[in-house]
Amino acid sequence: MTEIIAPRSGTAFPLSRGETLRVIDPEGGQVSDMLAFMRGDVREVVSNGRTFDYEETIRLTTGNRLWSNRSNLMLEIVEDNVGTHDFLLTPCSEATFRHFYKDKPVHRGCFGNLAEALAPYGIAADDIPVAFNIFMHVPVDDAGKVKVLPPPTTPGDFIRFRALDDLIIGLTACSAYDSCGGTFKPIHYEIEP
Amino acid sequence: MTEIIAPRSGTAFPLSRGETLRVIDPEGGQVSDMLAFMRGDVREVVSNGRTFDYEETIRLTTGNRLWSNRSNLMLEIVEDNVGTHDFLLTPCSEATFRHFYKDKPVHRGCFGNLAEALAPYGIAADDIPVAFNIFMHVPVDDAGKVKVLPPPTTPGDFIRFRALDDLIIGLTACSAYDSCGGTFKPIHYEIEP
Repeated sequence: MTEIIAPRSGTAFPLSRGETLRVIDPEGGQVSDMLAFMRGDVREVVSNGRTFDYEETIRLTTGNRLWSNRSNLMLEIVEDNVGTHDFLLTPCSEATFRHFYKDKPVHRGCFGNLAEALAPYGIAADDIPVAFNIFMHVPVDDAGKVKVLPPPTTPGDFIRFRALDDLIIGLTACSAYDSCGGTFKPIHYEIEP
Repeated sequence: MTEIIAPRSGTAFPLSRGETLRVIDPEGGQVSDMLAFMRGDVREVVSNGRTFDYEETIRLTTGNRLWSNRSNLMLEIVEDNVGTHDFLLTPCSEATFRHFYKDKPVHRGCFGNLAEALAPYGIAADDIPVAFNIFMHVPVDDAGKVKVLPPPTTPGDFIRFRALDDLIIGLTACSAYDSCGGTFKPIHYEIEP
């Protein structure tokens, strides 16, 4: 069954070991911030630093795994027809809207959406780390400078993860202007046994 | 006054707004993992993701600032005669020793040293994020692949930070083989008013 995340919103749900999660960009050009917490102890959380260290790359795609702050495996990317994702930048928030979009209305962003969706699982806002930003296009040049460009996705593009442990997943349809090329669109997802 | 961090050890200390912290590589070729927490509420902590976002680079040097998970300023780099630092990889730990150095004795690493030094300030091991790895040489190639090379420092090289708030600092002399080119050396630091 396909679940729909409305534009500029977010959700959270359990994903059990062995299940797969397919995240779909139904219209193209949208980003989805994903977080993962261990269901048995939500103080264990996905970590960009541990993942970069063990996977030996900052560009994650099919075959790469996402690791926790305690060096345990959480998710494996089992299919990816995009190959462009970001794991450097934090979810957009009220503060990032004030910083980057001074002339636009402030929005609570993916950060606020994730904090609300994760609260029922006992996860505090301060425990939200860098998210795995699905479809987000953040090139790094030779000098280390980062840019946020529109996602290269076309309608129906997707990525598929297998859960390697019992998890709580946070997932958004991104709220920031730059990451989505100025448009706000939904994200679809499917959980498969 | 010059303080000495012995090889493969770590320490923690307060640093007040306006003070500067000079971190020195006395022999050359050594790395120092640095963490910063807000003294008023240690749940606020330095964040690589927020820093990359606001500074728009992953290569931080003179003039760049380190930001917290709540989007507040913590430290500014005011002098840097090296220019090579890493903010991608997590502190070495028992798990990273088991992963990368299967034929070598397990060490608790910078992670264990930081956890012990920070515990008296009410900071839990799970609250240790990606550290700012001073002098650590982690090139990223065009495909995103990361490598850990020996630091390019010569004896006496240093970096100087100004505290932009009242902080608790964690600081190590790194314990891993790759980051220090296989040698273990001390780190020196000085706090200046």
